[in-house]
Amino acid sequence: MSHNSFGHLFRFTTWGESHGPAIGCVVDGCPPRIPLTEADIQTFLDQRRPGTSRFVTQRNEPDAVKILSGVFEGQTTGTPISLLIENTDQRSRDYSEIKDRYRPGHADLTYDAKYGIRDYRGGGRSSARETANRVAAGAIARKVLGDGIEIRGAVVSIGDQKIDASNWDWDTVPQNPFWCPDAEAAKDWESYLDSVRKDGNSVGAIIHVEATGVPAGWGAPVYGKLDSDLAMGLMSINAAKGVEIGAGFEAARWSGTQNADEIRMKDGAPDFLSNHSGGILGGISNGDTVTARLAIKPTSSMLTKVKSIDAKGQEIDVRTKGRHDPCVGIRAVPVAEAMMAVTLADHMLRHRGQMGS
Amino acid sequence: MSHNSFGHLFRFTTWGESHGPAIGCVVDGCPPRIPLTEADIQTFLDQRRPGTSRFVTQRNEPDAVKILSGVFEGQTTGTPISLLIENTDQRSRDYSEIKDRYRPGHADLTYDAKYGIRDYRGGGRSSARETANRVAAGAIARKVLGDGIEIRGAVVSIGDQKIDASNWDWDTVPQNPFWCPDAEAAKDWESYLDSVRKDGNSVGAIIHVEATGVPAGWGAPVYGKLDSDLAMGLMSINAAKGVEIGAGFEAARWSGTQNADEIRMKDGAPDFLSNHSGGILGGISNGDTVTARLAIKPTSSMLTKVKSIDAKGQEIDVRTKGRHDPCVGIRAVPVAEAMMAVTLADHMLRHRGQMGS
Amino acid sequence: MSHNSFGHLFRFTTWGESHGPAIGCVVDGCPPRIPLTEADIQTFLDQRRPGTSRFVTQRNEPDAVKILSGVFEGQTTGTPISLLIENTDQRSRDYSEIKDRYRPGHADLTYDAKYGIRDYRGGGRSSARETANRVAAGAIARKVLGDGIEIRGAVVSIGDQKIDASNWDWDTVPQNPFWCPDAEAAKDWESYLDSVRKDGNSVGAIIHVEATGVPAGWGAPVYGKLDSDLAMGLMSINAAKGVEIGAGFEAARWSGTQNADEIRMKDGAPDFLSNHSGGILGGISNGDTVTARLAIKPTSSMLTKVKSIDAKGQEIDVRTKGRHDPCVGIRAVPVAEAMMAVTLADHMLRHRGQMGS
Amino acid sequence: MSHNSFGHLFRFTTWGESHGPAIGCVVDGCPPRIPLTEADIQTFLDQRRPGTSRFVTQRNEPDAVKILSGVFEGQTTGTPISLLIENTDQRSRDYSEIKDRYRPGHADLTYDAKYGIRDYRGGGRSSARETANRVAAGAIARKVLGDGIEIRGAVVSIGDQKIDASNWDWDTVPQNPFWCPDAEAAKDWESYLDSVRKDGNSVGAIIHVEATGVPAGWGAPVYGKLDSDLAMGLMSINAAKGVEIGAGFEAARWSGTQNADEIRMKDGAPDFLSNHSGGILGGISNGDTVTARLAIKPTSSMLTKVKSIDAKGQEIDVRTKGRHDPCVGIRAVPVAEAMMAVTLADHMLRHRGQMGS
Repeated sequence: MSHNSFGHLFRFTTWGESHGPAIGCVVDGCPPRIPLTEADIQTFLDQRRPGTSRFVTQRNEPDAVKILSGVFEGQTTGTPISLLIENTDQRSRDYSEIKDRYRPGHADLTYDAKYGIRDYRGGGRSSARETANRVAAGAIARKVLGDGIEIRGAVVSIGDQKIDASNWDWDTVPQNPFWCPDAEAAKDWESYLDSVRKDGNSVGAIIHVEATGVPAGWGAPVYGKLDSDLAMGLMSINAAKGVEIGAGFEAARWSGTQNADEIRMKDGAPDFLSNHSGGILGGISNGDTVTARLAIKPTSSMLTKVKSIDAKGQEIDVRTKGRHDPCVGIRAVPVAEAMMAVTLADHMLRHRGQMGS
Repeated sequence: MSHNSFGHLFRFTTWGESHGPAIGCVVDGCPPRIPLTEADIQTFLDQRRPGTSRFVTQRNEPDAVKILSGVFEGQTTGTPISLLIENTDQRSRDYSEIKDRYRPGHADLTYDAKYGIRDYRGGGRSSARETANRVAAGAIARKVLGDGIEIRGAVVSIGDQKIDASNWDWDTVPQNPFWCPDAEAAKDWESYLDSVRKDGNSVGAIIHVEATGVPAGWGAPVYGKLDSDLAMGLMSINAAKGVEIGAGFEAARWSGTQNADEIRMKDGAPDFLSNHSGGILGGISNGDTVTARLAIKPTSSMLTKVKSIDAKGQEIDVRTKGRHDPCVGIRAVPVAEAMMAVTLADHMLRHRGQMGS
Repeated sequence: MSHNSFGHLFRFTTWGESHGPAIGCVVDGCPPRIPLTEADIQTFLDQRRPGTSRFVTQRNEPDAVKILSGVFEGQTTGTPISLLIENTDQRSRDYSEIKDRYRPGHADLTYDAKYGIRDYRGGGRSSARETANRVAAGAIARKVLGDGIEIRGAVVSIGDQKIDASNWDWDTVPQNPFWCPDAEAAKDWESYLDSVRKDGNSVGAIIHVEATGVPAGWGAPVYGKLDSDLAMGLMSINAAKGVEIGAGFEAARWSGTQNADEIRMKDGAPDFLSNHSGGILGGISNGDTVTARLAIKPTSSMLTKVKSIDAKGQEIDVRTKGRHDPCVGIRAVPVAEAMMAVTLADHMLRHRGQMGS
Repeated sequence: MSHNSFGHLFRFTTWGESHGPAIGCVVDGCPPRIPLTEADIQTFLDQRRPGTSRFVTQRNEPDAVKILSGVFEGQTTGTPISLLIENTDQRSRDYSEIKDRYRPGHADLTYDAKYGIRDYRGGGRSSARETANRVAAGAIARKVLGDGIEIRGAVVSIGDQKIDASNWDWDTVPQNPFWCPDAEAAKDWESYLDSVRKDGNSVGAIIHVEATGVPAGWGAPVYGKLDSDLAMGLMSINAAKGVEIGAGFEAARWSGTQNADEIRMKDGAPDFLSNHSGGILGGISNGDTVTARLAIKPTSSMLTKVKSIDAKGQEIDVRTKGRHDPCVGIRAVPVAEAMMAVTLADHMLRHRGQMGS
């Protein structure tokens, strides 16, 4: 058991605080003889890096990953892969303001309740910076899964602004700063998010993430369900408040006939006429696209004042200055993809451990 | 690692198929010297038992639990508690109809894909019957948590019928067959569900579950988050398709100022002016009520015909006869409560292992 | 984590006390479609059953195993296999004598120190009866390993009586009540053990256990070493005080040239000219026979009086009446074989999880 | 599950190869608010460092540890402690000689069998260098255990040279290069080991390790036994071939009356008149000193030629040049102490998780 590890056979352990010398993770259980370079990982880290547009935090970290072990002559060796990312932009600023003040919606209060000590600089372990490790581990997981499985994510709403699903185009996603699959919505979101930021406010977001090419049979019927492990993984992302598999809460409002994914045959394989199940039946993948949605709450750090208390129990007002994302959900897309990747890689190995292939 | 266990320090392992001689579970890690009788467990089992109203399956099982180990002279001994529930109502009916036919929305197809063998009688491990074990383990978890923590659940919608939240009254919940906290809605639901059943159809449901009295400090910041473990536990319930903590997906549509749970002091303790966080900040309980919601899809077994295939890949139509709940979400309430209880009990022990109290 | 489970992918959890209604175990992670009957398990249980000769305890339990789940139409389904063995010979005798008296060498004192409560009847979880579960799980592990791997054990010394290794004959083992591979030594042991018993005394034993046919490559280099897992498994057997792999402590007295297992080729495969390594190099099997030895201390329960204390801290003398084995090591042979089998089965699945075959 | 982690609640994960840029470990589950500096860890690392006498390898590594996370203002925070040790002495020598040649007694052959790829430079993960991580984690474990528990080790034999136990003096241990508690024996060992080295040979060793001050009650009765976890931990040390708890194999040769640890009362607490049990009864500590012994085989790398094969299956002779310890057992003492420390720290947390204190 570990509070800082994820997965069982494909398992990674992360460490590091936002304002220490570095963060990193150890990826254990990776199969051997998989070609792997730092560049393979860097590609995905660059996607979640802060400072890429005016809609994400201006903290400027190159997030350059180093492989310290587990790779020899360009291939994984089957031994632990240690990854390290130095913290380069630790501004020596004055933290006295937040040292003893609990920011509402943050873990400040709960850290003190749990540990009785807290690295108050930048959120400690709860910093979004920890998610760089997930993205790095996810890059390795994608290599384990192979080219037959494609994982991708998109933002389907920010605040009260939704996409029009009929406009969905995956090619649009990398062409706007929001991971938005609807080119028209993406335009509106620029001005919307600008106004949110000007108001010293923030908004939440909903992320769609999916994996195509997952074979039928991964997962397990009861507690090692593919969907419950996905729910754990996605809900462990900072600021996550909800997870749906397939039709999710919508299915709860439907009748059985509306929800049924009818099946026909196509090219010798089952062909599901709809995918309300999100590609998972009874905890086991059915061969269709695995889909999930993730609700991210609005950034808690805002310029607007909110009522709070300090560590001594005095009532105070808190207003958080500094470099914050008006919609932290945007940068969560590569993280959600990564959690999908590591969950699938773990289940791939778990499946073949028991089944033999 | 186990695909049939839940929890780490308070950990239970379940076994058994719907149509074998019995089902059961082994609860490991329970602290010693806790008074425990079969009646303590039976109370909760009786709540989820089938056959209690016309809105749930008419399968008639007494679900009488036996304690086979781990309790001595009325007290837990700290060693594994083995619980056994005999399967008494295994009608010797003809299963040939479903033996080779994949029921859409069921695990039939995915079991075959995974294991290449399947106990087709009654759903095997995927039978809702497995959840009796969860309820039994949950009853023990409640004992571990003690009287200071109260866990309770309710159905807040079935199909497209919602409660009026302003009518919420916990005393109403046990007075109707739906676990509905709104007495007026409960009346409407009777006729609604009767019509659903007459149509040979089914509907989904949304369940609210909460725990009051949880002290601040349980959980962990990254992968042992209290909310991610709750998400895993709730999503592992049969037919679950979505989980929310606190405001859930609603929070994703809000601004930061709407979502902020402001804090004042009351009687020397933090007093949250709202609870959109669901009592969890940064993965750690904040002392407020822990709240979650769970989406349950419509029962897949219906009298209405749906398109499917058989094990040989032939296209067929499937119509599931037999004793099925028109809304399986109703009986999931005690199961959701149980998963809340076992998750909290596990985190209570994990917390004091590291912290010392 | 569980204090009552063993293994990771092939994992079993045991429960039950000597004087409860039953004992049992849940075997999780077993691959599907393996033919398995109760008789397959019973064969091995019968080997460790008490009452088979005058040299083992006269407690008379049929130890009849029942399969309650996980097997369908004669084949494993890949879901948990629940095994149950009823306790039939629970003599209703007077336990007041041992209720508050700590038997030296037993867990009475340490149970009270740990749990503050104790099922004093027959040793609770520390009863040798628990090992029936190990043997049952081991029988299933053998099926997982297949016919190519043979696991067998023998007693190589009891008290100060050793075998002559040059007389070793596996066929002799089942022909005497001691699992002794040296027919001549076995004759001497009869009178030796009779005299030990007449003296109200007991003796220890050393067990050899080996597995032939294990392919090279199982295990791992650092903490998942095949030998460290074997050491854990064997040392977890009741009354175990020492474990050796290959030459064991003898190797510590040797020089490097004495200890070196030189290698030649034979039939296209590595041929080790000696096997001081016990078939394991760097934690990974090398293709040679895996060998281990296990030291079992003398039975602590004796008719001879020994100084002790009671639960109130009063100094007393203790003399244990009842049905006890003068050399508990004899009945440990099938248990040691079982722990070898379950450890190997777990590593087989762990290996192919990471490696793919 | 992880092949590179040890422990459950106090858990560490190690990574790194002998010839990569660095090695390191992540210590997870450490309680918060424990004072900890790099110097606290360095003290123990310096004890196992190579190059300290002519009897250990002359590889010259400062082994300077850096704390990268989990400590804030001189105290642990309860979050993962990441430790890093740079590899500074990676001589750029020619490894072509061992690249494709299997050194007998080494993991070369088994690595290739398992992974199909191998970092042949210096043994990869099987390098004794990995044990620096264990020592570092052990230093933190000692802090968790507190000053009331003292852990210490000694070499009781090298090759066929034993100490005279009646000369045992713990103060002697740090005064000779062998961790020898018998000053007279230590003198003899100098010339003995010199001659072994001159012969191009090596010898094994037996290590005694003990912990005083362990309270009664740690451990568990069946698979989480304190002794089986110690056996696993000690047997996981490089070159270990045997583990004994208390009297070990000697107990197997004794009668019950010889082996019995009789009990009297002293100062209100149980006083064991002997400690053949090694302070553990039924898997649970009894309050007496916890003792274990560990057999280390002779260093496999020797100047003397031995028969072997290469990766292509050609028969060859192998003679290992380079800087090797003639008796690798000597440097294993601080490693054995560390494994005792981490095992106890883990059980301390596991005990209080279930018991509450």
